[in-house]
Amino acid sequence: MKNEMNLTMLTDFYEFTMMNGFFAEGYKDKIAYFDMFFRRVPEDGGFAIMAGVEQIIEYIKEINFTAEDIEYLRSKGIFKEEFLKYLENFKFECDVWAVPDGTPIFPGEPIITVRGPVIQAQFVETMILLTINHQSLIATKANRIVRAAQGRAVMEFGSRRAQGYSAATIGARAAYIGGVAGTACTISDELYGVPALGTMAHSWVQLFDSEYEAFYAYAKNYPTGCTLLVDTYNVLKSGIPNAIKVFDEVLKPMGARPKGVRIDSGDITYLSKKCRKMLDDAGYPDCQIVASNSLDEYIIRDMLLQGAKIDMFGVGERLITSKSEPVFGGVYKLVAVEDNDENIIPKIKISENVVKITTPGFKQVHRLYSKSDSRAIADVITMHGETIDNNKPYTIFDPEHTWKKKTVTDFYSRELLKPIFEKGKCVYECPDLNVLREYCKMEIDGLWDEVKRFENPHTYYVDLSEKLWNLKHTMLEEYQD
Amino acid sequence: MKNEMNLTMLTDFYEFTMMNGFFAEGYKDKIAYFDMFFRRVPEDGGFAIMAGVEQIIEYIKEINFTAEDIEYLRSKGIFKEEFLKYLENFKFECDVWAVPDGTPIFPGEPIITVRGPVIQAQFVETMILLTINHQSLIATKANRIVRAAQGRAVMEFGSRRAQGYSAATIGARAAYIGGVAGTACTISDELYGVPALGTMAHSWVQLFDSEYEAFYAYAKNYPTGCTLLVDTYNVLKSGIPNAIKVFDEVLKPMGARPKGVRIDSGDITYLSKKCRKMLDDAGYPDCQIVASNSLDEYIIRDMLLQGAKIDMFGVGERLITSKSEPVFGGVYKLVAVEDNDENIIPKIKISENVVKITTPGFKQVHRLYSKSDSRAIADVITMHGETIDNNKPYTIFDPEHTWKKKTVTDFYSRELLKPIFEKGKCVYECPDLNVLREYCKMEIDGLWDEVKRFENPHTYYVDLSEKLWNLKHTMLEEYQD
Repeated sequence: MKNEMNLTMLTDFYEFTMMNGFFAEGYKDKIAYFDMFFRRVPEDGGFAIMAGVEQIIEYIKEINFTAEDIEYLRSKGIFKEEFLKYLENFKFECDVWAVPDGTPIFPGEPIITVRGPVIQAQFVETMILLTINHQSLIATKANRIVRAAQGRAVMEFGSRRAQGYSAATIGARAAYIGGVAGTACTISDELYGVPALGTMAHSWVQLFDSEYEAFYAYAKNYPTGCTLLVDTYNVLKSGIPNAIKVFDEVLKPMGARPKGVRIDSGDITYLSKKCRKMLDDAGYPDCQIVASNSLDEYIIRDMLLQGAKIDMFGVGERLITSKSEPVFGGVYKLVAVEDNDENIIPKIKISENVVKITTPGFKQVHRLYSKSDSRAIADVITMHGETIDNNKPYTIFDPEHTWKKKTVTDFYSRELLKPIFEKGKCVYECPDLNVLREYCKMEIDGLWDEVKRFENPHTYYVDLSEKLWNLKHTMLEEYQD
Repeated sequence: MKNEMNLTMLTDFYEFTMMNGFFAEGYKDKIAYFDMFFRRVPEDGGFAIMAGVEQIIEYIKEINFTAEDIEYLRSKGIFKEEFLKYLENFKFECDVWAVPDGTPIFPGEPIITVRGPVIQAQFVETMILLTINHQSLIATKANRIVRAAQGRAVMEFGSRRAQGYSAATIGARAAYIGGVAGTACTISDELYGVPALGTMAHSWVQLFDSEYEAFYAYAKNYPTGCTLLVDTYNVLKSGIPNAIKVFDEVLKPMGARPKGVRIDSGDITYLSKKCRKMLDDAGYPDCQIVASNSLDEYIIRDMLLQGAKIDMFGVGERLITSKSEPVFGGVYKLVAVEDNDENIIPKIKISENVVKITTPGFKQVHRLYSKSDSRAIADVITMHGETIDNNKPYTIFDPEHTWKKKTVTDFYSRELLKPIFEKGKCVYECPDLNVLREYCKMEIDGLWDEVKRFENPHTYYVDLSEKLWNLKHTMLEEYQD
């Protein structure tokens, strides 16, 4: 199976009314700069994780209006024929920069920048927001759950409760970047290489005349991957004794070892301790205990605090919908235009609500790391092209409370926004998903523990360069006049 | 654009391990019955709305394993060649019943029943749950918001925050069944006929040298659908005065009337009252005021209670993700099998947790309506084929507290579960989306107001027929022995 869905028309209708209007007003070739950024980490966490760049690239490459699409738009009776002709021959010509998948990201910094004809840069808004908001939400949530599991494997089990098909398929991809070990979603394995796993539902057990027969049949068919669901009737009185009986009768004679048992209901922490002892006593200390049933990072943390003997967690609806906060509020804002002489004119969006004021201009994000321990120290947003000399002390300051300063020495820095498209041509090769997952882990390992707390994390520094700060404040002052 | 995604492989991996196991155990042709049902209405509401049947039908019709799919499965090294051959020639042979889209549904009643070879009936579990859980969630949420708006139009604006592509596209379809007037999502109009609407973003206003020029250009291009976004700078000091100026200068000479103004930030209730007066005084009492910005049913209710002068609501992330409760917890359980003589053997899933005990057997759901006012009185779950004589008094009783009885007279009843597939052949024609939306509205009008409250709604009666109650309790008693 391949995803052959053309997503060109998945766009807010106002993109079309604006494009047609820009076209009519002679702004077809006007160059504009848009930033995608977000204002708050879901669940007030210390950081989020970027995900979805690969799908943005696929989407942009495939932008293409079919004859039916044009006919549909024509039928609305509000679009100029000249504009429809333009769409018929649409060719993407923008430059795009993006922070790579798997990178920890913070509020206020541009994570995608699009530069190009306003009519095009505006058009891609909906899909850029939809794609990055969704995947970053899930990667971030998955990573919280994975960290709560303290090294134990977490499996993504949520397809049946996902918000639609791509929430399941692409959601599993995002969860994998965030660190889950695999998924129950078969197509995500086939399409993206997220390892898929699964054994049995309660219906398997119910269909046989007894739990013992059900386990026996399963073990016979899957001697090397034998994980049995032990809670259809009674975990301790029936499930585990039957499992042990079948391990002894079917696997032992073959020289095979059991893979695990899964508990999907009841007081799992309590049950897991009893199960562990029963399995150990029966000679199966290597038999894993898998837990599932409405888990999330908080419940997993509590279970482990109470000494649950669990080797693997299956996490469903609360991961795949990011149930505790199911929205990643990324926005896409105009930050500059070019005049006829290619001068960049920064644009600012003022708001009564201070957090909604945008940072104007064409920008870059630099991450500063300590040379001694490779920890991330701060991010600095600069004008695009502005450099940070890693060989000199660099003073960062809080953009709100500018008297709060810190001089960083012995650091190296890297630019986070990478070129993805140049004049409409893709110039970025997406790393393999396993590489992204490893990169994500490494980058998060490089964050201070204080930033990684679930409650009251430290606010990671995201500062502006002096040049950018001055630009923003000059514009704010001018606006007040 | 057409949705050409083959969703056959969007299934939990355990469906394959079970299918392969059933196959190996000689259960390939064993007939099983599965019910989909849910246990709790999201947000503790009084009812949910069924949605997604059309997509289930499309999915089932398209089930088809490609050579790549088979090769992928073979590469796992755990599936028998015979089984893979079976998949290669897979032909769906089940019977399916479903409650039609737009029907109010209640906890505990089967909303989909699948009867057929267990290997097939098991296979479709993931997609049935995924599809119905998602769409019913959104239809239910949208309907809450629509009811809070008390007759004012609600537009679905959430694509950019939706959990993936189909959450946006099919989500808009579900929201339309639930009663929204339209969507911002263009492709949902093109594909499903959900009316798409949209005008401008803040970037439109920012791109021009002034708000006035931006409005002027928009009005000139869209004289008959002119809705202006008035909060880029200052609603009362700049947005509304500029809008009125443009209405006077551009629209009036053409004899056109403005469509509306949209407020997307600030204290919208307060601003709407001021705007209303300014527009009325300027001779535009017919100019609508549209409100957007993180709305939901609770905020809308409060705004209207405080006298907000709003004619239309644009609702985004809180609708399209059902933010306050983003999971619809439908499950799919084995309820019966057939023996070799085609006798139906009911199956029950026992649980310590009483709410998780299933209702066994092959069933039908009847809805009883009062003849006098067409209000829905109760649903009665019966054995399939059991009839309810509408000409005789019918006594319903609470399945938990059986002494609570009520005799219904002067009623008519109808069966909710309709045949969708018969021996694998689709026998159901999906009504037009507008018909479904109208049907949904009518059915909800027929519910008592007490069931429609947001807080503490009455529990609508969902009872079992005496025959079904006896079956369930006999099986429970037997299990205890």
